[in-house]
Amino acid sequence: MTFSERIWPKVEPLWATYLDHPFVKGLGDDSLDPKKFQHWLIQDYNYLIEYARLFAIGAAKAPNLKIMQTFTDLLYGVLFDEMDGHREYAKEYGLSLENIENTENAEVTTAYTSYMLNVSQAGNVENVMAAILTCVWSYYYIGHELAKKEDATSQPHYGSWIETYSNDDYKELVDQSITLMDELAAGKPERELEQLEDIVITTSRYEYLFWDMAWNQENWRTPDSFSHSSTSY
Amino acid sequence: MTFSERIWPKVEPLWATYLDHPFVKGLGDDSLDPKKFQHWLIQDYNYLIEYARLFAIGAAKAPNLKIMQTFTDLLYGVLFDEMDGHREYAKEYGLSLENIENTENAEVTTAYTSYMLNVSQAGNVENVMAAILTCVWSYYYIGHELAKKEDATSQPHYGSWIETYSNDDYKELVDQSITLMDELAAGKPERELEQLEDIVITTSRYEYLFWDMAWNQENWRTPDSFSHSSTSY
Amino acid sequence: MTFSERIWPKVEPLWATYLDHPFVKGLGDDSLDPKKFQHWLIQDYNYLIEYARLFAIGAAKAPNLKIMQTFTDLLYGVLFDEMDGHREYAKEYGLSLENIENTENAEVTTAYTSYMLNVSQAGNVENVMAAILTCVWSYYYIGHELAKKEDATSQPHYGSWIETYSNDDYKELVDQSITLMDELAAGKPERELEQLEDIVITTSRYEYLFWDMAWNQENWRTPDSFSHSSTSY
Amino acid sequence: MTFSERIWPKVEPLWATYLDHPFVKGLGDDSLDPKKFQHWLIQDYNYLIEYARLFAIGAAKAPNLKIMQTFTDLLYGVLFDEMDGHREYAKEYGLSLENIENTENAEVTTAYTSYMLNVSQAGNVENVMAAILTCVWSYYYIGHELAKKEDATSQPHYGSWIETYSNDDYKELVDQSITLMDELAAGKPERELEQLEDIVITTSRYEYLFWDMAWNQENWRTPDSFSHSSTSY
Repeated sequence: MTFSERIWPKVEPLWATYLDHPFVKGLGDDSLDPKKFQHWLIQDYNYLIEYARLFAIGAAKAPNLKIMQTFTDLLYGVLFDEMDGHREYAKEYGLSLENIENTENAEVTTAYTSYMLNVSQAGNVENVMAAILTCVWSYYYIGHELAKKEDATSQPHYGSWIETYSNDDYKELVDQSITLMDELAAGKPERELEQLEDIVITTSRYEYLFWDMAWNQENWRTPDSFSHSSTSY
Repeated sequence: MTFSERIWPKVEPLWATYLDHPFVKGLGDDSLDPKKFQHWLIQDYNYLIEYARLFAIGAAKAPNLKIMQTFTDLLYGVLFDEMDGHREYAKEYGLSLENIENTENAEVTTAYTSYMLNVSQAGNVENVMAAILTCVWSYYYIGHELAKKEDATSQPHYGSWIETYSNDDYKELVDQSITLMDELAAGKPERELEQLEDIVITTSRYEYLFWDMAWNQENWRTPDSFSHSSTSY
Repeated sequence: MTFSERIWPKVEPLWATYLDHPFVKGLGDDSLDPKKFQHWLIQDYNYLIEYARLFAIGAAKAPNLKIMQTFTDLLYGVLFDEMDGHREYAKEYGLSLENIENTENAEVTTAYTSYMLNVSQAGNVENVMAAILTCVWSYYYIGHELAKKEDATSQPHYGSWIETYSNDDYKELVDQSITLMDELAAGKPERELEQLEDIVITTSRYEYLFWDMAWNQENWRTPDSFSHSSTSY
Repeated sequence: MTFSERIWPKVEPLWATYLDHPFVKGLGDDSLDPKKFQHWLIQDYNYLIEYARLFAIGAAKAPNLKIMQTFTDLLYGVLFDEMDGHREYAKEYGLSLENIENTENAEVTTAYTSYMLNVSQAGNVENVMAAILTCVWSYYYIGHELAKKEDATSQPHYGSWIETYSNDDYKELVDQSITLMDELAAGKPERELEQLEDIVITTSRYEYLFWDMAWNQENWRTPDSFSHSSTSY
């Protein structure tokens, strides 16, 4: 049994909760409040800056040249292709990139990216790949599900979002990620597989919290006095 | 101006919110619900396991032998002295250490420790010290404040807690930490001081959230379906 | 005074020894024994695999998106452009890439790359840049010097080597690296500048040893019994 | 088959070369030139500062509290017990600790410690333990062998050295290290076992080179012009 086969029955029920979340439903039926989408967009743009670091760490820890090249390609893909998509949305909504980059990461954005960066730095390349997996794969899971609705990808507001995360190019990237994860996990002892599993499950939790943060336009749950003191690190 | 002098007027108003928090007030007037204290105890024990890693990273990154020895002493202090205090409380409350260690880290515990471990691994030893600082120092700030009340340290339930974090040994450890932080930050350019400041402010936020998590006996804000799937990593 | 201005009078006399080394002289007058060049080629190809990791670590530790993108571009440049040049040479000399990648790193290759990767992982992004600097810059120093000889770049055997490391594209990459180093070091206190200086000087030593290793076609100075036991990690 | 059983037939022939080395023979028959021993002492003291960092990294990456405590104990042991032994020798030979710490690490010392710190930071805790293993274990291998000679441990000059690395306390520390290595490697797939094996073999090479460096009182093989430019990082 591959690692992805092992993990699937455990994460699928978790990812199913995303489909029931009002934010994702709002993308699917094109009814989502643009203010909520912009909150997602800003946080996700800053999330991707941190997420890109994971691919860099993957390249640094890769066991051979071929895997280094794969991570380097993916790093390029995030920094230039995926983020270009976000930059397009930003332009549409009249948001300046400078303002977006200077927006403070929300509590959930900070927590989620810190979690992934911590386990990736502390461990081997398989930790890095496990940390990356949920985001890549669950976005396809959502995109693919939403795209089943007739004309979903041509809806005026969020059709292009659905298209991005359900098209064949994106599927190929997901398949490539799953294949690499399975190769890196193959033959590992149970105790190590459980650790990798925990990473996938914890990031699955954070994905839920991220959708919820965007829906609630949440920043930090600390009292107001905290929000004036922080700079933009 | 030392780094601690620079940061003090920015963090003091934040730490003052801890004193107003019902959990800390409950420690101070000895009225805190033991169930809430136990939630804190379990999460803080697991927090300290991760917190101890910071001192280890500090020793690994220390610029000279003397600072390595300091971090090694502090590592010993956390793992053996401070955690022994927690083990004493656990015994009092009839909690087994095995159960405590197997309890899953709450959302805030995971977020807070991941944040500190990420910035410490990614940066120099001064990042490590900045990550450590808030917890050490703000506990003294609280302990010292609560100890001002007459007979505070002899109160039946939480008097010993107040004593632990207000006594002279603990003050010395705090002073040692502040001195090291100031040495490591001395003469740094403004852009780097701002980054260190951000670490102290972000950990100050997490301290608030940690007290709040304990008060609310909170675990994770994800739907129930998530709580069955995770193991104990 | 910028960091590069500060370091130049210290490293220039060291780099001048490279110009006197028979390996570099042999490149300059096109007289170098092809066996010695092949030893360099094989070791330098494997060196570049490790060197590329430094740019990945730089991207992972970059303080902002712009610097992440710079390191990612440089990472791409090493893995695809610079190594393509080596792949061309390999083809000329009838060396298979598979054999090259399976050749064990020599003692000096292992030492030099381990040194750079250690200081880069242990420290901030400025350590990474300091570790990268000597190789990039001193190759231009050599290329530029050798190219002063008339028709140097059109010599039959090593003219293309001289061209590669003296042309305007390469000069631009060097200038970009120096500028980034100077930005990252600006305003730092003396004790930190000395540490960065040590990294540049130690890598300058390793550059000398690398030329010497290639000239002597050296692998490891251990007894023969050691050479049969190692695999290709 | 445990990892230590697997690796033993591969490293034993390599470690046997240490017994034939004139430095180790000179320890065994008490004939070693004190100047050579002092070169070893100075370099080994600085080596231990770096070696201690490995135990700190081990504590930081430990999969559970028990292993954290083990690494912390070992870290304490190196910094305070083993280095105290060296401090005793330094006093005997009239060498000041300040001078020792300010002596530049030799080429082999730099290479060996950089190698171990690189693989330890880049990988999991099992990399750390594999990097630590050769030094700990091969010193016992040597100490135990030299102690077989009658009155070896009571020889006037180096008897105490032989005693240190052959006594029961040291044997226990070695056994503890082997047991931990075997636990961490248990059940791992062949490709990962080969990587761990490579770490043990490469450090075995460095141990040989370290004895050889001490015997030759070697610093760096670079031209004289290099030795004036470096500070003491």
